[in-house]
Amino acid sequence: MKNVAILGSTGSIGVNALKVIDAFPDKFNVVGLSAYSNIGLLQEQIRKFKPSLVTVVNPKSAQELNKKVGSKNLKVLSAIEGLNIIAKHRKVDILIIAISGATALYPLLVGIDFKKHICLANKESIVIAGSIVMEKVNKKRIRLIPVDSEHSAIFQCINSSPNSEINQLFLTGSGGSLFKIPRAKFKDLSIDDVLRHPKWKMGKKITVDSATLMNKGFEIIEAHHLFDIPIDNIKLLIHPEAIIHSMCEFIDGSVIAQLGVTDMKLPIQYALTFPERLKGRLKNLDFTNMDSLNFFQPDIQKYPCFSLALAAAKIGGTVPAVLNAADEIAVGAFLNHKIDFIKIPDIIEKVLIRHKYTEKPTLDNIFQADKWAREETRSLC
Amino acid sequence: MKNVAILGSTGSIGVNALKVIDAFPDKFNVVGLSAYSNIGLLQEQIRKFKPSLVTVVNPKSAQELNKKVGSKNLKVLSAIEGLNIIAKHRKVDILIIAISGATALYPLLVGIDFKKHICLANKESIVIAGSIVMEKVNKKRIRLIPVDSEHSAIFQCINSSPNSEINQLFLTGSGGSLFKIPRAKFKDLSIDDVLRHPKWKMGKKITVDSATLMNKGFEIIEAHHLFDIPIDNIKLLIHPEAIIHSMCEFIDGSVIAQLGVTDMKLPIQYALTFPERLKGRLKNLDFTNMDSLNFFQPDIQKYPCFSLALAAAKIGGTVPAVLNAADEIAVGAFLNHKIDFIKIPDIIEKVLIRHKYTEKPTLDNIFQADKWAREETRSLC
Repeated sequence: MKNVAILGSTGSIGVNALKVIDAFPDKFNVVGLSAYSNIGLLQEQIRKFKPSLVTVVNPKSAQELNKKVGSKNLKVLSAIEGLNIIAKHRKVDILIIAISGATALYPLLVGIDFKKHICLANKESIVIAGSIVMEKVNKKRIRLIPVDSEHSAIFQCINSSPNSEINQLFLTGSGGSLFKIPRAKFKDLSIDDVLRHPKWKMGKKITVDSATLMNKGFEIIEAHHLFDIPIDNIKLLIHPEAIIHSMCEFIDGSVIAQLGVTDMKLPIQYALTFPERLKGRLKNLDFTNMDSLNFFQPDIQKYPCFSLALAAAKIGGTVPAVLNAADEIAVGAFLNHKIDFIKIPDIIEKVLIRHKYTEKPTLDNIFQADKWAREETRSLC
Repeated sequence: MKNVAILGSTGSIGVNALKVIDAFPDKFNVVGLSAYSNIGLLQEQIRKFKPSLVTVVNPKSAQELNKKVGSKNLKVLSAIEGLNIIAKHRKVDILIIAISGATALYPLLVGIDFKKHICLANKESIVIAGSIVMEKVNKKRIRLIPVDSEHSAIFQCINSSPNSEINQLFLTGSGGSLFKIPRAKFKDLSIDDVLRHPKWKMGKKITVDSATLMNKGFEIIEAHHLFDIPIDNIKLLIHPEAIIHSMCEFIDGSVIAQLGVTDMKLPIQYALTFPERLKGRLKNLDFTNMDSLNFFQPDIQKYPCFSLALAAAKIGGTVPAVLNAADEIAVGAFLNHKIDFIKIPDIIEKVLIRHKYTEKPTLDNIFQADKWAREETRSLC
């Protein structure tokens, strides 16, 4: 029996993780949960899974929650401290980091220090501080197990192969909601047009990032850090059917691919059970009733955000943190009707150009750059 | 530096194996070669690769060859004894078994006994005597490394995963030369029609077996033995583009696939260099210039040979040996204009029905069944 804590249990990944755990009552036991603002759902989860630790962002919400459900068997915590306490708690074997945003960095670094089995579903921590995180991972000789479907696929394809045998990675993407819409029409796009993702149901911010391919840029930066592969050796392939979740090409020309249904429970379960695989409640692919599988090179002209991401990744230092922060603010401004869709890359580019970057940043440098970029972007929106 | 012997060096696999070896002059050294009848090509290979052991089938050819090229540095052998001497020779590290037919069983069993690194490109040995071969393999705690593209793919996809995590294997096939021709037209097929394989250039016998899907039946029997997976858990998928060479579906629903160019040098090189991968002279796949990938369930009605193979495999014992022998004779009769294409499965079925099978056969039982089946099939053609 493994004890699991889920940071971000009321989000999409958190909810799916609890569904996976629910399928293995004799394998996993929930000991920790955390929520951002959905206290109602958190209470339901507490009733069902009976954790001994929960944490919420707001100390006031924590006090209220404590009155309602607190007991000698359930400690209610709050803020970053609450996340960190769970991340290092001796009761926790498996730590699922499914909160979004840079905040995840704190419990992630704590979890690495305490050598937890970490299932990582947070993008920002690796995008903005990949070098710092991976240095600690290597020092502690643990492995971060990615939950993102693309990175889970690459993780499975690489398996135990040494890096010297990898020629390049093919990170696949469905192409997002604008794959079939020509660039010329981008100026007329409504928020609804952009949010119409063909394959994955996700939050609004990430759906916009899928439309601009910024999300794929982030994923390439993540893959670069997680698997220690140069940015130039990670290629994006548009694969609209989203059956192949990514691939690894080895130096002999052989390509290993991972395929599966488009259900986040598959990579979540793999990350939870790694290095084993378990028979769960997941659906299998039906090859005899499947669309043709297609691959296209991305049209770089159409997706300036993608090029910005690759450029930022190659410079490194504090630049990816600025990219991430500027994107978050610019996409937010688009979703709040403050800027047009086509302005997103223009604004991010301006912020990137204005940034005076630090080559080997500390965590403080990164958070400063993040803060600066948010203010700068806001002033431009 | 590893010393390699190739049994069947003048055949298609043998010639390709020498091309692969030629790309790694500092990794592999040829110490043994063997040929069936192409003595001219064997002499060329001897001049180029300077082995210290060669063997040919016919003792008379061996004598003549000895006069021409024999020396104190080159021993010329013959017959099965010659193959066995090479298979166990202390100089041989890697043994590539690329001769066709049941004869390969002898050097294969010797090679296993002497714990050689065996690259197996012979189908018949596993089809007719898989249980005996794998029992010895397991006893000696070695691994047979398959050279066939499908089995190499499965071997790479399974990697080090335990069998308990495998749900099923998907063995792919291009569909052979008759994929687009309806069964109703099979009665009018010429030898040339049947020999027109869309993807792989191979010998005539195996091209006919590809057209009837008997070849895929044999491959499923091989996969069953090589990977210890029940016949019912190995599914054939028609995949006309021949990019995905086979797949493994795990119990969690995740599918791992191996992809590559349709070039036998890829699986040959992998088998030679396993457990490493080396950068050779092989081409890479071009995903941005690739046809759509398609999968179809085979039309069982259209391919009675395929059903016969699966049925024979499930009964086991001496039955697969009878299947193999009857097929060889029936296909030979078709290629010699003695029987029509559609008669091939009818004749094989008759022979299978007449066979009194042994459940746990010895090697002798298998060779007797083989001999009986050949005579019986000849009498029916």
